[in-house]
Amino acid sequence: MGYTQKSLDLHRQARGKIEIHSKVSLKNKEDMSSAYTPGVAAVCTAIGRDKKNSYIMTNRGSQVAIVSDGTAILGLGNLGPEAAMPVMEGKSIIFKEFANIDAIPLCINSTDVDEIVTFCRLIEPSFAGINLEDISSPRCFEIFERLEKSLSIPVFHDDQDGTAIVTLAAIINACRVTSRELKDLRVVVNGAGAAGIAIARLLIHAEVSDVVLVDTRGALYEGREGMNPIKEEIALRSNRLKHEGDLQSAMAGADVFVGVSVGNIVTGEMIAGMNPAPFIFPMANPTPEIMPEDAFKAGACIVGTGRSDLPNQVNNALVFPGLFKGLLQTGIRKITPEMKIAVADAIAHAIVPTADHLMPTTFDKQVVENIVTVLAGMASN
Amino acid sequence: MGYTQKSLDLHRQARGKIEIHSKVSLKNKEDMSSAYTPGVAAVCTAIGRDKKNSYIMTNRGSQVAIVSDGTAILGLGNLGPEAAMPVMEGKSIIFKEFANIDAIPLCINSTDVDEIVTFCRLIEPSFAGINLEDISSPRCFEIFERLEKSLSIPVFHDDQDGTAIVTLAAIINACRVTSRELKDLRVVVNGAGAAGIAIARLLIHAEVSDVVLVDTRGALYEGREGMNPIKEEIALRSNRLKHEGDLQSAMAGADVFVGVSVGNIVTGEMIAGMNPAPFIFPMANPTPEIMPEDAFKAGACIVGTGRSDLPNQVNNALVFPGLFKGLLQTGIRKITPEMKIAVADAIAHAIVPTADHLMPTTFDKQVVENIVTVLAGMASN
Repeated sequence: MGYTQKSLDLHRQARGKIEIHSKVSLKNKEDMSSAYTPGVAAVCTAIGRDKKNSYIMTNRGSQVAIVSDGTAILGLGNLGPEAAMPVMEGKSIIFKEFANIDAIPLCINSTDVDEIVTFCRLIEPSFAGINLEDISSPRCFEIFERLEKSLSIPVFHDDQDGTAIVTLAAIINACRVTSRELKDLRVVVNGAGAAGIAIARLLIHAEVSDVVLVDTRGALYEGREGMNPIKEEIALRSNRLKHEGDLQSAMAGADVFVGVSVGNIVTGEMIAGMNPAPFIFPMANPTPEIMPEDAFKAGACIVGTGRSDLPNQVNNALVFPGLFKGLLQTGIRKITPEMKIAVADAIAHAIVPTADHLMPTTFDKQVVENIVTVLAGMASN
Repeated sequence: MGYTQKSLDLHRQARGKIEIHSKVSLKNKEDMSSAYTPGVAAVCTAIGRDKKNSYIMTNRGSQVAIVSDGTAILGLGNLGPEAAMPVMEGKSIIFKEFANIDAIPLCINSTDVDEIVTFCRLIEPSFAGINLEDISSPRCFEIFERLEKSLSIPVFHDDQDGTAIVTLAAIINACRVTSRELKDLRVVVNGAGAAGIAIARLLIHAEVSDVVLVDTRGALYEGREGMNPIKEEIALRSNRLKHEGDLQSAMAGADVFVGVSVGNIVTGEMIAGMNPAPFIFPMANPTPEIMPEDAFKAGACIVGTGRSDLPNQVNNALVFPGLFKGLLQTGIRKITPEMKIAVADAIAHAIVPTADHLMPTTFDKQVVENIVTVLAGMASN
């Protein structure tokens, strides 16, 4: 695809993608005396007196930590923290370009839940928010929940809620294009990791008719073998018809397929067994669960993938810049399901969608603007 | 002094001093595909295969963490991690301006030795080095020693060795100006915290005639009351004459005074009691142990302080940019006493000193260049 070599060359030439810049002049003794000692002592004292001053006298107010343990890097799995850095630097430049947020990649040398929670508690004074990335399931759920309870700054796990929000946005726009409604849709989500679970949770909140979550052993239902506490909890609230079969049988009669699993595991036959004109979102990266042309051939009405080089990209990068910009501007600390739905709606309505242009691009400034506006409205309520 | 208001205004207007910049273009889909997905997967895979690639394919190779717990901020004491940020951001822009190093301030919410050591171990994969800052004594010694043993990237505590190196550089140049020699000097160091202990250790390595370290209870000697293990260890190797008195009596007959304590505690009388034409370095910030004009009146031959608005500033910022640049370029992991002495010498010899211009300024590019050259020479030996 050419991207591989281009990307390797780019990274080698630039030696990474981020750097620190100074926002102030440092060209003479006078500059030094104001930016550093002795003048800086007054700034330290002012913050020591009232910690809230750290948000206006240091860069903290626009500073977010991107924390990863490198256990679930893209679709590549556990390659370790060093190997997660290129992704986190990519997120960092997206944060800067689209939301003027300074995001610091911190890829850490532990996969232990307690240590990761402690780590985030330790860095809290230096940041206005924490964006968790590429931490494998089910640990990511416990980490997120413990942090949300204990920290006074907002925490967001992009692989869970970023993916869930943008998926909901895609389904909302597919409904707009086809004049259908969420409440009439039966959705099959394949892959019950961080993304799949979070997508199922959000779609249930958004009141789709039903969600069936499928993992490598088939549909999740109450009391099934091979579950974990997170899967058990979602099994209680999804799969209303208590379907027990494999992916193909789960898809029979469904209206929407969402794939957050692995490449090439959906066939035309599976799609042909769905309700007429289904929405197909095979979002595995880099190889989708089924290629768009094959999905269309089998009767799909709308198709979107995770890839930037295919039409209708369903991309987390539509979410996190605007979401964090909104959080930092409003001081919202906890992102409720209602906020997630509102953000999905804000993203969807940044454009008038068509079947071929279902989603706004990350370069569309309306996206961040819409998200910030909707969060500002919810914060003032 | 005007600096206070200027500095408060500067920090409020700029909202801190650092920000993230992208080193690559992110203006269209093509850029996105190389800097981020799908192209970035190849970069992650390459680093997963060989972690050393993180130094050339991410910014790690020029990235240093500035870690502080905010317990010993300048001369202000323990104001907490938020209040340490303005100093760390100041160091960050100095790192960038003078050595093109990207230093990330991480002020952390713990004063526990084990937690701070764990924290540094966790961030190791994202950085090429760690610069500890403003961590109070004696914890800082244990933290430093444990990290130096356990990490594979270099660790430096600026308040210890940065101060020690630049102090030695100042004494070397005072010797050059007056045609004296280190081995003939008896030095009194007032203040037995991180800086004082490190200065004493380095001066002993540099073979000055004797060092007497003084704290609030007077001179340190073997078996004295009110010691800690760090003080006990240095007492064994300093104060050869086993002097037991207070600061004034310790200074009697000394050739050099180094102050890393608090303002206004040295009198003209104390200086008058020293050997003729002593070197006086009252480096407490913002108020020196004695003002230069009073020191000169009492017979001082050369005076240097820690302040940028007075002549002969003895400034750590002469050390850490060049030192880390040298470490990152050479791959040196452990900074030996011989290296510290060589770096002090390199700083001193960046200029031909006079009594009024004892030290190079941080704006003198020769400083960083000299340090890098000397470390490169030592690395290849």
